[in-house]
Amino acid sequence: MKVAIAQYACTPDIDTNLASAEREIAAAGAAGAALVVLPELHNTPYFCQVEDPARFDYAEPIPGPSSRRLAEAARAAGVVVVASLFERRAAGLYHNTAVVLDRDGSLAGRYRKMHIPDDPEYYEKYYFTPGDLGFTPIDTSIGRLGVLVCWDQWYPEAARLMALAGAELLIYPSAIGWDDAVDDSAEQQRQLGAWQGVQRGHAIANGLPVITSNRVGVEGDHTTQIRFWGHSFMFGCQGETLADAGEDAEQLIADIDMHRSETVRRIWPFLRDRRIDAFADLTRRYRD
Amino acid sequence: MKVAIAQYACTPDIDTNLASAEREIAAAGAAGAALVVLPELHNTPYFCQVEDPARFDYAEPIPGPSSRRLAEAARAAGVVVVASLFERRAAGLYHNTAVVLDRDGSLAGRYRKMHIPDDPEYYEKYYFTPGDLGFTPIDTSIGRLGVLVCWDQWYPEAARLMALAGAELLIYPSAIGWDDAVDDSAEQQRQLGAWQGVQRGHAIANGLPVITSNRVGVEGDHTTQIRFWGHSFMFGCQGETLADAGEDAEQLIADIDMHRSETVRRIWPFLRDRRIDAFADLTRRYRD
Repeated sequence: MKVAIAQYACTPDIDTNLASAEREIAAAGAAGAALVVLPELHNTPYFCQVEDPARFDYAEPIPGPSSRRLAEAARAAGVVVVASLFERRAAGLYHNTAVVLDRDGSLAGRYRKMHIPDDPEYYEKYYFTPGDLGFTPIDTSIGRLGVLVCWDQWYPEAARLMALAGAELLIYPSAIGWDDAVDDSAEQQRQLGAWQGVQRGHAIANGLPVITSNRVGVEGDHTTQIRFWGHSFMFGCQGETLADAGEDAEQLIADIDMHRSETVRRIWPFLRDRRIDAFADLTRRYRD
Repeated sequence: MKVAIAQYACTPDIDTNLASAEREIAAAGAAGAALVVLPELHNTPYFCQVEDPARFDYAEPIPGPSSRRLAEAARAAGVVVVASLFERRAAGLYHNTAVVLDRDGSLAGRYRKMHIPDDPEYYEKYYFTPGDLGFTPIDTSIGRLGVLVCWDQWYPEAARLMALAGAELLIYPSAIGWDDAVDDSAEQQRQLGAWQGVQRGHAIANGLPVITSNRVGVEGDHTTQIRFWGHSFMFGCQGETLADAGEDAEQLIADIDMHRSETVRRIWPFLRDRRIDAFADLTRRYRD
């Protein structure tokens, strides 16, 4: 199955960004891809760099204008689209939500980001209520998709729960980068390596391919500037790199063998042996 | 803190193997290491390649002759030793047990391998009862050690439970290799990459260093031959490679910064945000 990742810089203008998404979806369809994954919050600048109540204006309901426009692009291209939107659920209640649009333009499902970060320049706890839909895969015409979002990617629990629910792919729209004023080059490489490395671990531990899109480009002013590091990637179900976009590629396309999990899980039957009788403390904050 | 890994081939003779362990412990002490990790079941050939009731003769109680001899070596060298023994607990009741000997020669604790594999040439379910001591770190004079064994290394749950219980290092004695008759070179590289990759994931997800020793050498006859792949390693708490023994090095020594977890967990506070309210299904076999 051919899979595409769109990796592009987002502008302050929503309409421009939506046009970029439409262009990428069309290109993915023209290239024969069955699935295209867009980066996190691709409609807007990465607005979480500061806490500003005016920025809730970026949010919209789902279904809403953007999801409908993306659904139409999915239908026109005949591609399943994993999009990432700022969801307004009610006044004062917002989520960071991944939306899956099937190739017929229907809304296959949504995933509300469960793990919300909050670090300098990533003030997401201000904007997003933690998801309340659990770790639930989304069924589509091309398979059951384990869609998670960015900060979730650091949590093996999230990947495992998706795998246990029958997800056939793990998918992470992301927005992560460096602050060049804070991180030297060695630290930047460790962070990039860790970001890919922890997700490679999810592929291996669960015998599933992982598809992750990331933003590129520099956003913010000199006091809060993020250089989104790109390096969108696809890993196979032994963690092998199938494709890596580096910092420049705008669209990454690779073949994913959807039957390989069956083979790999036979030689490494990790699911057979999990010591579920001894896992109860995983629901504790700390074992003290 | 200087840490040593011993990576050596094991022979059919227990006394020879114990002498190798003593030599490695002494060398680690002479090199100024505070800790040395031996490979899995280093006293014996890897006897699990066939199911043979006579091979239970390899087992011994703990404390017992081997643990006492290793304890004396630990005391003489002034080094904490993580050893790996075939434990006879009662007639018909055996475990694959890691033993931690403190630098004063005392038995700091034991860990009974929780996840037991069973694959062609690795018939461990025949020999080892799954551990019943849980995922409990062992306190020593150099810190709290999250000692696990081999097949455990594929399970993010095991690493997480050790981290939640305050482990400062994750340590895995291992015995893993290729069957050259089954695996071609590309598959061998994927397996080695996956083995290191999943453990790199544990380092990153938990902000902890990982220290893993593996056997080297070829064992078995032409019908069941394992080429243990070595590549013992130490990863830092962002998953960065601190040392990798390749297939040849007999002793690997590197410095581990025991204060870096504190720093890394401040920039990546994963433990803060775990969605423990949504993790209950981790104790299910499958979510169907």
